[in-house]
Amino acid sequence: MGTRVRNRDQAELLRLLRDRGPLSRAELTDGLALSKSKVAVELERLSGTGLVEDAGRAASRGGRPSSLVRVGGDLRFAGIDIGATSVDVAVTDGALRVLRKVQHGIDVRSGPEEVLGTATALLRELCRTTGTTALAGIGAGVPGPVSFADGVAVVPPIMPGWDEYPVRERLSAEFDCPALLDNDVNLMAAGEFHAGAARGLGTFLFVKLGTGVGAGIVVDGRVHRGVDGSAGDIGHIQVHDQGPVCACGNVGCLEAFFSGVALRRDATTAAEAGRSPFLAERLTTTGVLTGRDVADAAAAGDPVATGLIREGGRHVGEVVAKLVSFFNPARIVIGGGLANLGDLLLAEVRSTVYRRSLPLATRNLPVVLTGLGDAAGVLGAVRMISDDVFSPNPVAG
Amino acid sequence: MGTRVRNRDQAELLRLLRDRGPLSRAELTDGLALSKSKVAVELERLSGTGLVEDAGRAASRGGRPSSLVRVGGDLRFAGIDIGATSVDVAVTDGALRVLRKVQHGIDVRSGPEEVLGTATALLRELCRTTGTTALAGIGAGVPGPVSFADGVAVVPPIMPGWDEYPVRERLSAEFDCPALLDNDVNLMAAGEFHAGAARGLGTFLFVKLGTGVGAGIVVDGRVHRGVDGSAGDIGHIQVHDQGPVCACGNVGCLEAFFSGVALRRDATTAAEAGRSPFLAERLTTTGVLTGRDVADAAAAGDPVATGLIREGGRHVGEVVAKLVSFFNPARIVIGGGLANLGDLLLAEVRSTVYRRSLPLATRNLPVVLTGLGDAAGVLGAVRMISDDVFSPNPVAG
Repeated sequence: MGTRVRNRDQAELLRLLRDRGPLSRAELTDGLALSKSKVAVELERLSGTGLVEDAGRAASRGGRPSSLVRVGGDLRFAGIDIGATSVDVAVTDGALRVLRKVQHGIDVRSGPEEVLGTATALLRELCRTTGTTALAGIGAGVPGPVSFADGVAVVPPIMPGWDEYPVRERLSAEFDCPALLDNDVNLMAAGEFHAGAARGLGTFLFVKLGTGVGAGIVVDGRVHRGVDGSAGDIGHIQVHDQGPVCACGNVGCLEAFFSGVALRRDATTAAEAGRSPFLAERLTTTGVLTGRDVADAAAAGDPVATGLIREGGRHVGEVVAKLVSFFNPARIVIGGGLANLGDLLLAEVRSTVYRRSLPLATRNLPVVLTGLGDAAGVLGAVRMISDDVFSPNPVAG
Repeated sequence: MGTRVRNRDQAELLRLLRDRGPLSRAELTDGLALSKSKVAVELERLSGTGLVEDAGRAASRGGRPSSLVRVGGDLRFAGIDIGATSVDVAVTDGALRVLRKVQHGIDVRSGPEEVLGTATALLRELCRTTGTTALAGIGAGVPGPVSFADGVAVVPPIMPGWDEYPVRERLSAEFDCPALLDNDVNLMAAGEFHAGAARGLGTFLFVKLGTGVGAGIVVDGRVHRGVDGSAGDIGHIQVHDQGPVCACGNVGCLEAFFSGVALRRDATTAAEAGRSPFLAERLTTTGVLTGRDVADAAAAGDPVATGLIREGGRHVGEVVAKLVSFFNPARIVIGGGLANLGDLLLAEVRSTVYRRSLPLATRNLPVVLTGLGDAAGVLGAVRMISDDVFSPNPVAG
């Protein structure tokens, strides 16, 4: 690659420039508690490999104007966020600013060959349109449990054909650069940590409400993946003894009560039973109902839709309350497609969490919606791969 | 103190000698990836302050026999584990070997003056009988949420009078040494990590079943305390919508279903209702029933006692199953007074966890009983304070 980071000091310089650059040498010295000469030496080395570059002079604050440094202008990262029904692909610069981003509908059940074929075609197209000739790294995510060390999905329930498929290896080989694979919810959590509703928070939970339901756990600024990569798998936590049968075979799982799939089921039932004129009309028009339709119905004052959202929020809140008692996070961030249900959903989650958790764990606990929408995944993906590329001991390639 | 550790290398040398000493200089060099000369320099310095000392010569393996080093023979740590109904106090040497340990019945509700008066009197007695003239540090635990940074309990529900009482400050001043205060369950988890059923495991859960119920969470070898120090507070996780009213005001909390308090309640009810001749006779004899009586009854074939234990294990298992899905730990260790209920309890917890968690998270998940019994707390306490004393940036004193 020729872009290897040689030591911890170089890694810290690069991460600081990525997140807060351009910076002067004085700011780098202060920010990292390194000596002036150490900073100069390492910048010189990094400059030789194109990882950093000169960024002109800072506005003078009296005295000699100091020169600014930034991450190399040719550095490019890519993020691929594969969901159940869509894939998001983005190319960013070295400071993780999105140069171009695209979303494309897929069906993850059509298998890795087809889905990765689509994703890599989209990425090649983005590289072309952004003038990117080489990638410094690719971060990717899939909607299922992942062995992070191996870069493969592991017995993912909604992804037939993906078990042990060499996703990371394929991306790395096709684009000749380091790649990492993680669970999509972990990436979303990393995205919120990098630039969203949990920016800079050490310890928080991200709850994804989408086709499925999952949590991303961040402890002291690092994603907690668990010993088998299955941490955060909260969709199959039992909410009640009785309830709908879940795809997993158990009864009363959170996902069976509330998720994109469950909401579509309940909205369709209500429409067909004539309990909601709004949803019935929408179903006739479009042939299929989504969370968006339920949100529209609720906004139009439809009581059945409002009821579905409130009940869903309550079920989510009951599970989150347990996690709050257990984990005592600084914040709960709610994202995924159903976050579009907005304040009505949020209010119900909040009131349930505040009622059911111990006061000590909730006295300073904000429960908020994502600040990134569907960009959380790709942002987390580039954050993850750039952390690794800007490390003296990378996991990838 | 004169025993300050000056840098990271010294800290690592001390911890390695504490856990695996005596060691030769060659073993230290290998174990820490430090240069031979660096090891020699730092050992020299540490020897000057009495933190390490010569330990004679190793058995010759051919060639010149190498000299052994160990932690200073005069180093002493103390652990104080305050539970709801008893306090355990221990004095150890620098390698955390228990020199003497004592347990004394107390009632934590009698307040900090009385309880700490008892604990410090016990510690002074232990110092006298072990010839300890100075302590290098004290680790202490209480059965409630703790602000670790402040060394005080924070609105602890079962500890009237303890809120914000300066426990750490008092211990530190009385014994003129650094001190740290933590939640008792966190200490038990640290004890299991140091020398018990989770020795050397990075990520696991410790579940304490005692008067109350709580969990200790270890992530990558460090206790996760949560942002308010209330992490692991699982006793008030709701098991069922309906159920006994809990002391916290909610309905159906785990603690209200199963804990030392709940088991005493259920056993007494069964005895008084004439449903268990064994427990009725025991109640007549002793005037009060404990978990031990229920264990004895079950061992004698009493079906009511067996039922209580099984049902309790099922409730614990239901909560643990949720935590396993969420957290994906490498092991579950069950301790606290009710761990004496033994294999019957364990079997029920296990089968519930394996049935209710996702297969991926349980395929390599042992659920085991504590290896330390009631020594887990004091061992964790000395582990915690020695980690801090053997650190270049101690939190304590």
